[in-house]
Amino acid sequence: MNDNYQLLRRHFEELVELTDEEWDFIRPHFKDKKLKKRQFLIQTGQQVEHEYWIIKGLLKSYAIDEKGNEHILQFALEQYWVSDYNAFQNQQPASIYVDCIEDSEFFALSLESREIICKEVPAIANFFRLKSNNGFVSLQKRILSLLTQTAEERYHALEEKLPHLIQRVPKKLIAAYLGVSRETLSRFKL
Amino acid sequence: MNDNYQLLRRHFEELVELTDEEWDFIRPHFKDKKLKKRQFLIQTGQQVEHEYWIIKGLLKSYAIDEKGNEHILQFALEQYWVSDYNAFQNQQPASIYVDCIEDSEFFALSLESREIICKEVPAIANFFRLKSNNGFVSLQKRILSLLTQTAEERYHALEEKLPHLIQRVPKKLIAAYLGVSRETLSRFKL
Repeated sequence: MNDNYQLLRRHFEELVELTDEEWDFIRPHFKDKKLKKRQFLIQTGQQVEHEYWIIKGLLKSYAIDEKGNEHILQFALEQYWVSDYNAFQNQQPASIYVDCIEDSEFFALSLESREIICKEVPAIANFFRLKSNNGFVSLQKRILSLLTQTAEERYHALEEKLPHLIQRVPKKLIAAYLGVSRETLSRFKL
Repeated sequence: MNDNYQLLRRHFEELVELTDEEWDFIRPHFKDKKLKKRQFLIQTGQQVEHEYWIIKGLLKSYAIDEKGNEHILQFALEQYWVSDYNAFQNQQPASIYVDCIEDSEFFALSLESREIICKEVPAIANFFRLKSNNGFVSLQKRILSLLTQTAEERYHALEEKLPHLIQRVPKKLIAAYLGVSRETLSRFKL
């Protein structure tokens, strides 16, 4: 457990500097949480009271359309932050699902705690600002790829960005991420 | 010009509080810039040294695919922030175009200036953190709509979110945003 908190501190310190005093103030705001494979972190319609930093594991966030098809928004693995950010920030019911592809462990941070640590520790406000900017860029890339690339090009882009992910995720989920059938995926040059 | 700076100050103060001293420190970092309709704010391959806050006008950010088709990422109008954020933050060549649908006026903020004002004025770090979070949520909604909605559903969602935009933007650009032909758009129930 102490090791996990050390991992979290190092994660912050990749982008900003923290004093021991600042870290001691921040640390108690993060609560440990564990889920088994296939359990839900978030379900549509729920209140979303936390965002989560992934200590270990692998998750997917997705929407289900009117026909019951699953559309994967993002995969999330170690050191990623995950939530339904619309629901979390705007205090609205969740519009996506997040569930575990593998047994997973997290640190949970409530909205209230996040605003407190951002107000009290400017370095943390800057950390979340930079992280959010990176997240924005990553979603912008995903939109551009959905608008301009074929599914096969998107597959190779995913492979290049997260080579180890392709090994950990069942092929049918990769297909749902790309927006193609499992059969179409099997015809790509893998 | 002074009025425009007052608009910018009010824009910040919608989310955070600023003292006069903080505002006097921030204000000189924003430089006025004007462009005519059809001029480019950003072109692919360029270095992107600024992000822009739109005082007045209307712009579109877009990519052009290998076949020469234009895919619109976002429209941006008064009080929006716009840039190629991947290029701006990661100091990489631009991968999108941003041009003016109407004559437009901006305040330009350099990356160096942004980091300085965020470090020196914690309220500004929190402002950009909250803005970036909102931008992230807005892109997440756009991805979900691309994955799960028909073009006609996306049209009505855009109409609901930005009713005045539909009036200001030529129909062929609305079609490029939705990813359909001008002919297909004309068959929607408008």
